[in-house]
Amino acid sequence: MSDTDIRPGERAADLPPAADAQLRFIGRARTPFASRADCPRQGRLDGPDCALELDLVWADALEGLERFEHADVLYWLDRSRRDLVLQSPKSDGTLRGTFALRSPVRPNPIGLSRVRIVRREGARLIVRGLDCIDGTPLIDIKPEACAYTPEAPAKAADGA
Amino acid sequence: MSDTDIRPGERAADLPPAADAQLRFIGRARTPFASRADCPRQGRLDGPDCALELDLVWADALEGLERFEHADVLYWLDRSRRDLVLQSPKSDGTLRGTFALRSPVRPNPIGLSRVRIVRREGARLIVRGLDCIDGTPLIDIKPEACAYTPEAPAKAADGA
Repeated sequence: MSDTDIRPGERAADLPPAADAQLRFIGRARTPFASRADCPRQGRLDGPDCALELDLVWADALEGLERFEHADVLYWLDRSRRDLVLQSPKSDGTLRGTFALRSPVRPNPIGLSRVRIVRREGARLIVRGLDCIDGTPLIDIKPEACAYTPEAPAKAADGA
Repeated sequence: MSDTDIRPGERAADLPPAADAQLRFIGRARTPFASRADCPRQGRLDGPDCALELDLVWADALEGLERFEHADVLYWLDRSRRDLVLQSPKSDGTLRGTFALRSPVRPNPIGLSRVRIVRREGARLIVRGLDCIDGTPLIDIKPEACAYTPEAPAKAADGA
């Protein structure tokens, strides 16, 4: 099935072009998955080593990330259609809302993987747990929230 | 400190305008946090009820999301500068790479909160755990990954 097909029962919205904010790609994911058919549905923390290859301007932005065990990686699934409201992932007529799925088909096709940090090599971060095709554009990397304590002082709304 | 200031030691990159991909806002977050000073540094799952108010075209895209306990919410922190490579969150000269922080200052200022789903009211999803200012534009909602099993059949790379 191609990215432009629609399955029985699926509903597309009629939308103007997306124009609310602009992304800047920060690099590319290097994975052993050459095509969409090769990609797993979900990455595994014991999966193969992959690399987050950052553009050189962002190399130092990795400083200090290795002290975390896990990171959240955001990437852009640029081959996905963006207008489906209801989807039938099993192609059996059963419908789910787009926001009840982690399908790449969504109004903003941003993939999110929680990865295990293996090591840093300059502007490259070696990780496990990615599920995307080789060459996927990267948008952001954040230390995983549960292990993260903000460096800036707490504010009133953070409570005791 | 305003969003355009820079602290001692912080380094900004010289960048062309962001123009790699376009986002479409899907709605707005309604939170009790009127200003940035009111926001917690990190949302708490036992924090106040907040609403994800979707544009009506996306209302049905919430179908089936209530069967999950938690969701990942992505939002756009549109008041943040986007060019810092190294930051000093404690303003004490200690520097961290941008990707080692969950600061809103990043090349693509996308916030990510894991929230508890309280209930759905049509095009509104009531959640706890947001940390953003009232009116923040929403980009995406996904069921939390650990509790999620893809609906589509497994592929070879998903393993046994």
